[in-house]
Amino acid sequence: MSNSFGQNFRITTWGESHGPAVGVVIDGCPARLPITVEEIQADLDRRRPGQSDITTPRKEADKVEILSGVFEGLTTGVPISLVVHSSDQRPGAYDEMKEKFRPSHADYTYQAKYGHRDHRGGGRSSARETIGRVAAGAVARKILFHARSIEVRAYVTQIHDIIAPPVRNFPTLEEVEANAVRCPDGDTAARMIERIKQVRSAGDSVGGIIECRVRNVPTGLGEPVFDRLEADLAKAMLSLPATKGFEIGSGFAGTLLKGSQHNDAFVTKGGRIRTATNHSGGVQGGISNGEEIVFRTAFKPTATILQTQKTVDIHGTETELLAKGRHDPCVLPRAVVIVEAMAALVLVDHWMRQAAQNQTFRF
Amino acid sequence: MSNSFGQNFRITTWGESHGPAVGVVIDGCPARLPITVEEIQADLDRRRPGQSDITTPRKEADKVEILSGVFEGLTTGVPISLVVHSSDQRPGAYDEMKEKFRPSHADYTYQAKYGHRDHRGGGRSSARETIGRVAAGAVARKILFHARSIEVRAYVTQIHDIIAPPVRNFPTLEEVEANAVRCPDGDTAARMIERIKQVRSAGDSVGGIIECRVRNVPTGLGEPVFDRLEADLAKAMLSLPATKGFEIGSGFAGTLLKGSQHNDAFVTKGGRIRTATNHSGGVQGGISNGEEIVFRTAFKPTATILQTQKTVDIHGTETELLAKGRHDPCVLPRAVVIVEAMAALVLVDHWMRQAAQNQTFRF
Amino acid sequence: MSNSFGQNFRITTWGESHGPAVGVVIDGCPARLPITVEEIQADLDRRRPGQSDITTPRKEADKVEILSGVFEGLTTGVPISLVVHSSDQRPGAYDEMKEKFRPSHADYTYQAKYGHRDHRGGGRSSARETIGRVAAGAVARKILFHARSIEVRAYVTQIHDIIAPPVRNFPTLEEVEANAVRCPDGDTAARMIERIKQVRSAGDSVGGIIECRVRNVPTGLGEPVFDRLEADLAKAMLSLPATKGFEIGSGFAGTLLKGSQHNDAFVTKGGRIRTATNHSGGVQGGISNGEEIVFRTAFKPTATILQTQKTVDIHGTETELLAKGRHDPCVLPRAVVIVEAMAALVLVDHWMRQAAQNQTFRF
Amino acid sequence: MSNSFGQNFRITTWGESHGPAVGVVIDGCPARLPITVEEIQADLDRRRPGQSDITTPRKEADKVEILSGVFEGLTTGVPISLVVHSSDQRPGAYDEMKEKFRPSHADYTYQAKYGHRDHRGGGRSSARETIGRVAAGAVARKILFHARSIEVRAYVTQIHDIIAPPVRNFPTLEEVEANAVRCPDGDTAARMIERIKQVRSAGDSVGGIIECRVRNVPTGLGEPVFDRLEADLAKAMLSLPATKGFEIGSGFAGTLLKGSQHNDAFVTKGGRIRTATNHSGGVQGGISNGEEIVFRTAFKPTATILQTQKTVDIHGTETELLAKGRHDPCVLPRAVVIVEAMAALVLVDHWMRQAAQNQTFRF
Repeated sequence: MSNSFGQNFRITTWGESHGPAVGVVIDGCPARLPITVEEIQADLDRRRPGQSDITTPRKEADKVEILSGVFEGLTTGVPISLVVHSSDQRPGAYDEMKEKFRPSHADYTYQAKYGHRDHRGGGRSSARETIGRVAAGAVARKILFHARSIEVRAYVTQIHDIIAPPVRNFPTLEEVEANAVRCPDGDTAARMIERIKQVRSAGDSVGGIIECRVRNVPTGLGEPVFDRLEADLAKAMLSLPATKGFEIGSGFAGTLLKGSQHNDAFVTKGGRIRTATNHSGGVQGGISNGEEIVFRTAFKPTATILQTQKTVDIHGTETELLAKGRHDPCVLPRAVVIVEAMAALVLVDHWMRQAAQNQTFRF
Repeated sequence: MSNSFGQNFRITTWGESHGPAVGVVIDGCPARLPITVEEIQADLDRRRPGQSDITTPRKEADKVEILSGVFEGLTTGVPISLVVHSSDQRPGAYDEMKEKFRPSHADYTYQAKYGHRDHRGGGRSSARETIGRVAAGAVARKILFHARSIEVRAYVTQIHDIIAPPVRNFPTLEEVEANAVRCPDGDTAARMIERIKQVRSAGDSVGGIIECRVRNVPTGLGEPVFDRLEADLAKAMLSLPATKGFEIGSGFAGTLLKGSQHNDAFVTKGGRIRTATNHSGGVQGGISNGEEIVFRTAFKPTATILQTQKTVDIHGTETELLAKGRHDPCVLPRAVVIVEAMAALVLVDHWMRQAAQNQTFRF
Repeated sequence: MSNSFGQNFRITTWGESHGPAVGVVIDGCPARLPITVEEIQADLDRRRPGQSDITTPRKEADKVEILSGVFEGLTTGVPISLVVHSSDQRPGAYDEMKEKFRPSHADYTYQAKYGHRDHRGGGRSSARETIGRVAAGAVARKILFHARSIEVRAYVTQIHDIIAPPVRNFPTLEEVEANAVRCPDGDTAARMIERIKQVRSAGDSVGGIIECRVRNVPTGLGEPVFDRLEADLAKAMLSLPATKGFEIGSGFAGTLLKGSQHNDAFVTKGGRIRTATNHSGGVQGGISNGEEIVFRTAFKPTATILQTQKTVDIHGTETELLAKGRHDPCVLPRAVVIVEAMAALVLVDHWMRQAAQNQTFRF
Repeated sequence: MSNSFGQNFRITTWGESHGPAVGVVIDGCPARLPITVEEIQADLDRRRPGQSDITTPRKEADKVEILSGVFEGLTTGVPISLVVHSSDQRPGAYDEMKEKFRPSHADYTYQAKYGHRDHRGGGRSSARETIGRVAAGAVARKILFHARSIEVRAYVTQIHDIIAPPVRNFPTLEEVEANAVRCPDGDTAARMIERIKQVRSAGDSVGGIIECRVRNVPTGLGEPVFDRLEADLAKAMLSLPATKGFEIGSGFAGTLLKGSQHNDAFVTKGGRIRTATNHSGGVQGGISNGEEIVFRTAFKPTATILQTQKTVDIHGTETELLAKGRHDPCVLPRAVVIVEAMAALVLVDHWMRQAAQNQTFRF
């Protein structure tokens, strides 16, 4: 019961790293949305392994098929089943993982929880699971843009200790896609790419921070109390592999301000109520206030490194492990589109919830 | 549909700041748990206004009543209804809020979302809503400790720019309760208290960071993919008023390490599989690994300050607002028990989920 | 986790027969609905014990209070907490129930499931639980009528073997309330009342059938596959105490027709697509087709009878039981408003679901 | 959000009648259950078209594949994705349905709800959707039998006005499968088969009743109030295409008894508390009492008949329709395994819920 996300626009992902296929079922997608397989594929291509010289060299085409829910180019309101068949499997590369737990992976906890696991490539805990999220996220993003011109844009702002200067404007997709690391500041991007290549050649790995913004958000999305917009975004981000932190608006740095510095004064601009600053990150009391939503997610360094590590085997005996296989020395470039997908899923879901409460009744 | 939290141990809170009462219904509490009204009251007393000279001087006894679900000292498995009647209401103090939106509060977003709001004291967006969480959290904590000696302990580690030294050992309740700010380091606590008094006398406010740890956690709690333990903890924390960030284990600082530094080597200690370090914060692949769970939550400075601020009224006209009323210059001391409550709710819920999957079937 | 009903308009009931109070929390009620405590009380008065000479002589005023969610006569979109305090408790009347299981009651199954129960008056299994349903149902009915003139009307069509002639037109509330048994056919009603008095004087009980109709239902409510409108109505009815069966439209009798007789031909009337007959009962493929919704619910004879019965005690020893207390010899007259409440809850919930899917996106 | 069923053992079905495939994702299946593709196929073969001379002559092999969740013969606790690819599609046979609404089908309501539908073979409203239910039900039945020898057995008791004598003992699978109509009484079965052939040759159709029993049910399954075992069974049955009624135990006929006749006296047999009769149908107060669960479901005559019928087209113009295609003159023989599947899904789900509440905590 952990493989579904969303209340109204609900996705269920399935599939293991080395199984025959991975996929997602979208339940609750409104009818009459024009959507093509190419639009979904475009997002998957941004997540695909082997797309640049700083990602894993594994080759997977990750071609998506639509098995249900779309008829004559339009959604029909029934479940959309999307599937990606696997191609480049080298199970032999993972034999050692059957007996030994990889440090800071899910091998040990899966074994402890289930008493039985598909060890090949991490099985269900593999980042390959996120294919379903990205495919469903592409549909969610289409809804947001098609209906209200809402745009979700993520990009890398930190790799290891290399930090990009603040990104002033909402970056275009082209600015983000201009380099392999997906940092809109070109100079910083070049240094980040260099760092990733360095650590890779040392058999090591690095992490960093992805920032995400959403613009054209209507006022009123998000529920008070438990299902605040920022709470659901936080859950969405911390549900991604390798994430260790989330912050919205002023975030952790906001703790260093006084209230008189932190409060966002209300002003009237262009006939709309706006805030002069945006320490709130676009959400107040759990509900969107019409400003840009801005949040950041911290990713730890990739757990798989090509160095000998101390660990134990499934019998609890201490041993050593030297990982084989082809891995990303840094997950962030490929995670950008995953962050966008999850943010879009949260927003569509809250938009539908808002519709359920607000647009039905004409009191 | 935002006022419930949890899947198996599910709470629903209700009530507004200046309504006649606030409360919570707990659905799914196992039967035969011994619980007394005094145990619940003890936690509410740690949240209560007026408890020290650095909190709001408002006087509320916050006395809880059990209306259902407990019979002859034991839970019966049916809903537990807990209610706290209000006493110290001064609605006059909030008249200005009917027309003017307080900056960085929920006044504007509630008005925009619902077109109608109980403006008195913030209505439902008031921190008074957390009474229900703390009351339910007391029941959850009783379950955890009673059944498996699991303990949840939160404490303040930062107020404004005053940062406590790392807390090495799991603090006792007495160490946390030893001072009004609930920082287990006495010297730091004294400086924090001084800072809070300073900003209060200036009509200003400050925020900070609360750390929370859980010990004696069984291995195997948490679900892969969306309902990871850290994802549900993140949602729980970001569902609290005034929170802006969450991190687990190494958190944002972990982005500065390389994989070879960050990975937690597995070792065997005392016949159990353990990790040599705990950058993972007790969770791997979304599932508890038996180490201490450690996470931190960032709270912004209190939005209510006793200074004149620029804002707009409900007609969009720019104006000024000078808050009246009695407020906390810093919410963290009273938020410690709320953090503990939410963490306990997440853990009990995941424990019951794990039972549903694992203990039923003897294959 | 069984005490909540609904996905968007979600109610949670709490309270035991002999506890200090019973109540309900409504989560998801749209904002700006005008509602008064008197409107809710009016429905509770139709459920109240002691209302006529064929119901239990117990005296309970069942006065409802609104503790949250309504401000200046309008709902605010936050949870509505409704409570009814208990008055006429005679716990002594139930002492024997502590040790002996009443036949065809829930005493044994609660004891087996929970190992501990509030035996007084059946505790949570008492029909007193339905107070919360009726109170919430009153709000749901107000929404339906206020927004779209949708009306829900239930009435008794069978008591024991006395069967009313088919009810041709949608009965008025006055026609239903014209007699104590709530059968709109006056002659049949008189015979039903006589039968109920007979069985009561013999210390026995009877059951029967309640029919319910809904008119002015918009086309399109209900979800395909699992959450069909008739499936949710069936669940709602079978969730009521003492119910043994549900049927919609042609129901069980429809099995005696051939397809050529049973199919509802489509016709055009008054510019709308209609069906010439209504064997479908207003629902096709799980979705409302704009015709009247018509369904029936079977209630067994009241389990509590004033005759000596064979049973066992909590130690499994065979014994006898002679019930005391004041009971309804037939629950149907008081159940009419409960059926209406549950039907209204299902319809409001599906209406909000439909809004979430259909009205948000303007493709 | 209507394509999922269950809380702990949750299935999501997808796929349209004439799409490339149909399937189901099972989320929450416990780990370490031995299961083979052949066991799932065996149930699908009982649902398959073309299996006898009284079902549709359409040929579909309905071969199932396991795409995830099973490793080395055991479930792993992660989602099980099952898919059946389509083979025998004759879309031409359905061209007329694009413009004309078939009476008593879902064509009109889907068009009204979604404004767009896959008309081919009924799209999502086709009984082909139940393939996913049967496949998931096979896994659920394996759990029930493997863990506790719980058996679910359905069979036909009525076709049109031909009613089988009461089935005294729990029938064996062989007794049910002994004839094409799946009625365990051979003589009645022969008459039923004859009747079905008659109506088919007249281009007409018939309905009837399926009874289902479950034995070896532990005491304590089912939740009080809304999620009563009979309420969830009723929902499960009314979620099936063509169903119009549900009754448990004494059902509608129970309304003709007095309480003194209907109550099930408790007795002690073989050291266990039992009931002398079973009018309750194995459930009291919503919770299983350890007796056999017995319920019945009414199916209307198949809506598709090979006769000219009056209807309207999508523009509301009155017209006539003569169905083509290959159809079942009576759905009941193929629906027997679907009823069993849904019952098994309800029971497994409640068993897991019970485990969550009861077996976790050792107070």
